[in-house]
Amino acid sequence: MKALEEKIRQEGQVLSGDVLKVDQFLNHQIDTDFLFSLGQEFAQLFQDEKITKILTVESSGIAPAVMTGLQLHVPVIFARKHQSLTLTDDLYEASVYSFTKQTKNQITVSRKYIDSEDRVLIIDDFLANGQAVFGLLDIAEQANIEVAGVGIVIEKSFQPGAAKIKEKGIHLESLARIKSLEGGKVEFMTD
Amino acid sequence: MKALEEKIRQEGQVLSGDVLKVDQFLNHQIDTDFLFSLGQEFAQLFQDEKITKILTVESSGIAPAVMTGLQLHVPVIFARKHQSLTLTDDLYEASVYSFTKQTKNQITVSRKYIDSEDRVLIIDDFLANGQAVFGLLDIAEQANIEVAGVGIVIEKSFQPGAAKIKEKGIHLESLARIKSLEGGKVEFMTD
Repeated sequence: MKALEEKIRQEGQVLSGDVLKVDQFLNHQIDTDFLFSLGQEFAQLFQDEKITKILTVESSGIAPAVMTGLQLHVPVIFARKHQSLTLTDDLYEASVYSFTKQTKNQITVSRKYIDSEDRVLIIDDFLANGQAVFGLLDIAEQANIEVAGVGIVIEKSFQPGAAKIKEKGIHLESLARIKSLEGGKVEFMTD
Repeated sequence: MKALEEKIRQEGQVLSGDVLKVDQFLNHQIDTDFLFSLGQEFAQLFQDEKITKILTVESSGIAPAVMTGLQLHVPVIFARKHQSLTLTDDLYEASVYSFTKQTKNQITVSRKYIDSEDRVLIIDDFLANGQAVFGLLDIAEQANIEVAGVGIVIEKSFQPGAAKIKEKGIHLESLARIKSLEGGKVEFMTD
């Protein structure tokens, strides 16, 4: 998506190593009109997949997921990383390892809100090693539901997540695919 | 807002004591079309306030804030409750005490994204004791910006938050105002 690449070039910041900071429009400050256009793009890319529900993880996945849900007229469920006082139902749980923080989180989704008829679309802001997506795929498997696709705002194609998802035969769409962040410069995939 | 009261009656669950669970459409699963209508309502209520930015707290505030930002065509900033690896800027910090969890959280907002010209609207899902709103008001004060209003999806009017905000002369709008949850029954304010 050209407009997203342009936005990343203009507003993104490459931090030391392989970290791209997009706090200006996606992760901390949210450019609502721009994210609406990302939602439109996801809705179009997955329009034939008969999506019934969108699954994401708090917090940065919520805005792009909600914008997509708005276009597809389906609900969004965000998996919780932190315990909720009112989330006392039976839960699906999966373990998500964060390479950057070197910590392991349990993510949870209430069993009540997904059933075996659902065809879910997984949406997240970033795809690097794929740990969050694999946590959500694990939950989808426990719930015995079909994953109709995975939609990612920014894929770091030089990390293994994207390849691992495609190996499983899952329909993956990433709106921007980053080939390299070397030398503090963002280079996008061209194919 | 009658449609919201109806939704709470139909889908809300009163847990022991003073806890109302609305995980079915607001806090865990998000009814995107319905939340869009809440955003329209907030936008109308605050249309004369010349809002330039919306401030909320992760995670449950994000969806209603983003829906409102979409209508007012302004960005949303969500304060973080948890440390972010990429949020390395100079930060505004405030302390938020959670009565339900009996823990104290630091919430943070990057200094970069608010300036003294801003007129912010604070949006949150619930208002009970008002701790989260007062944390955001503290940050607004540090940033020397004007708070044009506070928009709340569900106010628990039997707890002191709403009165404390109004005492400060702040324009508060709550879409549903709950008088009591006694006996497991939701009773709304009628005035």
